[in-house]
Amino acid sequence: MTTARTKITVIGAGSVGVSVAYAALIRGSAAEVALYDIATDKVDAEVLDLAHGTQFTSASVSGGSDLSVVDGSDVIVVTAGAKQQPGQTRMELSGINARLLETLMPQLVERAPQAVFLVVTNPADVMTVVAQRVSGLPPHRVLGSGTVLDTSRLRWRLAHRANVSTASVHADIVGEHGDTEFPLWSNATIGSVPILDWPADEPFTAEELDRIAIEVRDAAYAVIRGKGATNLAIGVSCARIAEAVLRDERAVLPVATVLDGQYGIDGVALSVPSVVGAAGAVPLGETPMSAHERAQLHASAAAIRAAIDELG
Amino acid sequence: MTTARTKITVIGAGSVGVSVAYAALIRGSAAEVALYDIATDKVDAEVLDLAHGTQFTSASVSGGSDLSVVDGSDVIVVTAGAKQQPGQTRMELSGINARLLETLMPQLVERAPQAVFLVVTNPADVMTVVAQRVSGLPPHRVLGSGTVLDTSRLRWRLAHRANVSTASVHADIVGEHGDTEFPLWSNATIGSVPILDWPADEPFTAEELDRIAIEVRDAAYAVIRGKGATNLAIGVSCARIAEAVLRDERAVLPVATVLDGQYGIDGVALSVPSVVGAAGAVPLGETPMSAHERAQLHASAAAIRAAIDELG
Amino acid sequence: MTTARTKITVIGAGSVGVSVAYAALIRGSAAEVALYDIATDKVDAEVLDLAHGTQFTSASVSGGSDLSVVDGSDVIVVTAGAKQQPGQTRMELSGINARLLETLMPQLVERAPQAVFLVVTNPADVMTVVAQRVSGLPPHRVLGSGTVLDTSRLRWRLAHRANVSTASVHADIVGEHGDTEFPLWSNATIGSVPILDWPADEPFTAEELDRIAIEVRDAAYAVIRGKGATNLAIGVSCARIAEAVLRDERAVLPVATVLDGQYGIDGVALSVPSVVGAAGAVPLGETPMSAHERAQLHASAAAIRAAIDELG
Amino acid sequence: MTTARTKITVIGAGSVGVSVAYAALIRGSAAEVALYDIATDKVDAEVLDLAHGTQFTSASVSGGSDLSVVDGSDVIVVTAGAKQQPGQTRMELSGINARLLETLMPQLVERAPQAVFLVVTNPADVMTVVAQRVSGLPPHRVLGSGTVLDTSRLRWRLAHRANVSTASVHADIVGEHGDTEFPLWSNATIGSVPILDWPADEPFTAEELDRIAIEVRDAAYAVIRGKGATNLAIGVSCARIAEAVLRDERAVLPVATVLDGQYGIDGVALSVPSVVGAAGAVPLGETPMSAHERAQLHASAAAIRAAIDELG
Repeated sequence: MTTARTKITVIGAGSVGVSVAYAALIRGSAAEVALYDIATDKVDAEVLDLAHGTQFTSASVSGGSDLSVVDGSDVIVVTAGAKQQPGQTRMELSGINARLLETLMPQLVERAPQAVFLVVTNPADVMTVVAQRVSGLPPHRVLGSGTVLDTSRLRWRLAHRANVSTASVHADIVGEHGDTEFPLWSNATIGSVPILDWPADEPFTAEELDRIAIEVRDAAYAVIRGKGATNLAIGVSCARIAEAVLRDERAVLPVATVLDGQYGIDGVALSVPSVVGAAGAVPLGETPMSAHERAQLHASAAAIRAAIDELG
Repeated sequence: MTTARTKITVIGAGSVGVSVAYAALIRGSAAEVALYDIATDKVDAEVLDLAHGTQFTSASVSGGSDLSVVDGSDVIVVTAGAKQQPGQTRMELSGINARLLETLMPQLVERAPQAVFLVVTNPADVMTVVAQRVSGLPPHRVLGSGTVLDTSRLRWRLAHRANVSTASVHADIVGEHGDTEFPLWSNATIGSVPILDWPADEPFTAEELDRIAIEVRDAAYAVIRGKGATNLAIGVSCARIAEAVLRDERAVLPVATVLDGQYGIDGVALSVPSVVGAAGAVPLGETPMSAHERAQLHASAAAIRAAIDELG
Repeated sequence: MTTARTKITVIGAGSVGVSVAYAALIRGSAAEVALYDIATDKVDAEVLDLAHGTQFTSASVSGGSDLSVVDGSDVIVVTAGAKQQPGQTRMELSGINARLLETLMPQLVERAPQAVFLVVTNPADVMTVVAQRVSGLPPHRVLGSGTVLDTSRLRWRLAHRANVSTASVHADIVGEHGDTEFPLWSNATIGSVPILDWPADEPFTAEELDRIAIEVRDAAYAVIRGKGATNLAIGVSCARIAEAVLRDERAVLPVATVLDGQYGIDGVALSVPSVVGAAGAVPLGETPMSAHERAQLHASAAAIRAAIDELG
Repeated sequence: MTTARTKITVIGAGSVGVSVAYAALIRGSAAEVALYDIATDKVDAEVLDLAHGTQFTSASVSGGSDLSVVDGSDVIVVTAGAKQQPGQTRMELSGINARLLETLMPQLVERAPQAVFLVVTNPADVMTVVAQRVSGLPPHRVLGSGTVLDTSRLRWRLAHRANVSTASVHADIVGEHGDTEFPLWSNATIGSVPILDWPADEPFTAEELDRIAIEVRDAAYAVIRGKGATNLAIGVSCARIAEAVLRDERAVLPVATVLDGQYGIDGVALSVPSVVGAAGAVPLGETPMSAHERAQLHASAAAIRAAIDELG
């Protein structure tokens, strides 16, 4: 039997995990989409609800609470983890999820030794470092979804402002998937026009771009205030990243991997433009940045490193 | 400007409405997918979360709590409505949602006079009758999603048992979207094989088909027990029905419309094989049924009629 | 590196092969679509023309006249072969193409030992037998495209007549991909309605169905008279069959494989409803047929056997 | 009945027109794809061959040699026209095709007064001017496919060289669709990296970029030498442009429209970055260019103006 059939397994049947599975199923990102969670009743119900719609999809669905669900996966999307509780510090959350990954990752690697891992569990950059360490896998095999979602938010926001298609906006958010993230404005273009040259009655100004960057950085909070969580955009973002791996696209995307000296940063995972393909993700040697952007990147790295160090 | 751009508007930003919008967006069911709800914070957050993923979709997103969201819609999917509360009877729920549709439908028709309506609000068949009555639209313009979802569940279940693709199973559930629904076994086939002739080590028996019919009828309860609601499969089902309208496919689907004498049934909406296209849905003249199936259809009609009469 | 990336290679850069590659590329049937031909200038130009459009596709393209093109293929679509020349008998053509496959198949199997083969070279059923024999592969690994195309023609024709979507017509042509092919009318349905019960002002009659069957059988001649060849519908049909293999769909399709006693037929390839998945194609045990249909199937088998025997 | 159903009509059933129709059908670019040609036997055969594959597509097909085929079109792709014959000058060809458009365009506009026109007939820029003039439509309603295809060729070539996905290359060819076309290198990026900064063992040099520009400019000749024509990449390019119109995407694409003073050019159609949506195409006010690029653009305009003037 041919080994070609592609399989994505999503770990965690919370709202993010279910959205990733639903988006991947509808997009046909892989031939098989699987969902795993330790909560049997919940995951079985989600799998059933997904399966009930497969008359209208080309992909098929499987899943449950037995780790055999993971067997044969090509891409594993890790969304499992606690959510921040009232009164709980970010660091306490980090500790809980790190311990979860310490248990989980070796089991997943044993079940699917060829898989590429995509880490979504928060705080995503820190968890990417943890997942890579405890798995023993090379850094390129463990991706954090990083600022792919933030980048999509930025492009939608700029597209709306410039009155063009989102697909015509080329601008990236890099750094931490969190408060220190920032756009690489120096190379941002709309169509092939540098963003500050975009011809419009009311041109973009540096001040407006700063406001947009802050708005995008805080977009998750706006969504959470209104609906309690974010799940839809991250769902389709993860499906897209998985496709880049499964098709060996070598797409340039701002995913996070543990850096090894690039930009003078070592042992920290953060998002920089990376080539995503069958091998996972490899950061571009050095994306040109302004001095200010480079300083921002190092500030991001320092913030993540502090979180990792605190975790121990 | 060409008028060709297609638009689906979903009314109601609950878990069903959001799943319909998400599925339609990812599938590219229309050029624009809009989401409307009276709860401003909730709908704005859902629209934002949907929009944040549009770097990876070909469709665009709009929405909010102002009824102008509805302008220019080609298909309107009505999911708004209360959910059954503990201690509340099904009939009390029915009354609340009927009053909601009495207010809402005329406003929607005024905003989008050419639109085809797809009613998902529960109890779906009764609400389809209410929506058609208060809108004053011809019956073919007001579809209930009916047993399209139940049919997808049946096909998935049979496909799993027969070890073939869901797309190769041809079997329909008709009647009420509820406890009196039933499969049209007499014409069910897998590939081009009548289901009772399906060649397998362990052939289907009438007893097994009965068990499967009950399991499918009760599938929603199984999902609800595990996750509290059903939303994913209905989401993709509604996107699919909307596509059949927007592309004028004339697809044969078991949607519900108010019957006008077909099968000797009048003034009641229930699902029978219907041709779905740009005009909405028109029931096939008469789908052949066994005497038993015909009796089941009339029992379904009686159950729905009783609910309508009780509603007044 | 993950081995998940899927690859379809098309052998032969004639109008059929190019259409298969173009359709597979646009559909994203596999991550990579490759085209091979011995005519270097022609194949290089076709690959370049395909590649020039890949800004708008998710799949990538490769190809040329070196057999290394075939390496790593999951599905190989064999379209190479001479076309019937004026004055040439069908049997002479058969001999030429059989010798081509005798040389080619072992080289392809050596390059891609896990691949499933899809044989399109004419006469397709006879060439499927030759390809299976000379490859030494089990029958399920060597599919003829058979009557999948004829079936699509029939469904389109019936859909047009019944004024419904092609997707709502369930009817199969089986037997030889040629003059002795025939529809399995006994189980044909539109929606879930047996075709002779289809409710219409002017119902189908047995006489009309006979006329339609002849029209479909001769459809290729009608196309050839107008444009000199058929290539578009076979292109998309082959892409579809390849997808069923690559996604392990277990779709029921009338592809041709060398039968091994099914229906009392042995050593002849012809199309019967078969389950198509990662393993290739396995005929359903026995699809129920009327006595007349069974006689037609045996007549088809006899015609193909005669052609094989004459080939020696 | 809703007016939402989208329709693309392709004029001309030659190899380009058929490829556009085939690509649009497979992509589902519109609900209906129609093909028109005056050669009845040819167009009927092509429509039949397209229709025979519609079991595997979501769009439907129509067509023939009666102009009523055009009724209700939202986008009309004009591929009709003579091809350059041996011994014939480019100007003689231009005259023949101009006279064809003079007859054809008013008939098409009468049949589909709301349609957006996409002109592919060669020489494409000159024919865009002719089509706009004789139609009396505003310039934004008459697009030439221009350098969209050349741009796709450039991106594929750069992607191959940089070893990344074509989708990650942002670089445009502008000017004439012909010998004076040129890339806007000054704003070209890979991912978000300016092309001359692309980090690689062997960086791009200005000399290499010059060589690549020439290779892309002459790519059509390379394809024609091997297969006699180019049709596949232009087919998928036109389907893509039509989608941008039908979905009102406002995508930035280098299509050609008759300029009205932009860049100091007036009355000449050539490709510059333009916003493509439901209204057709509107050139961006002014895309920043280097002095050299601006000179090249004016040389392109002069070449096209000379051809128009010679045509009279």
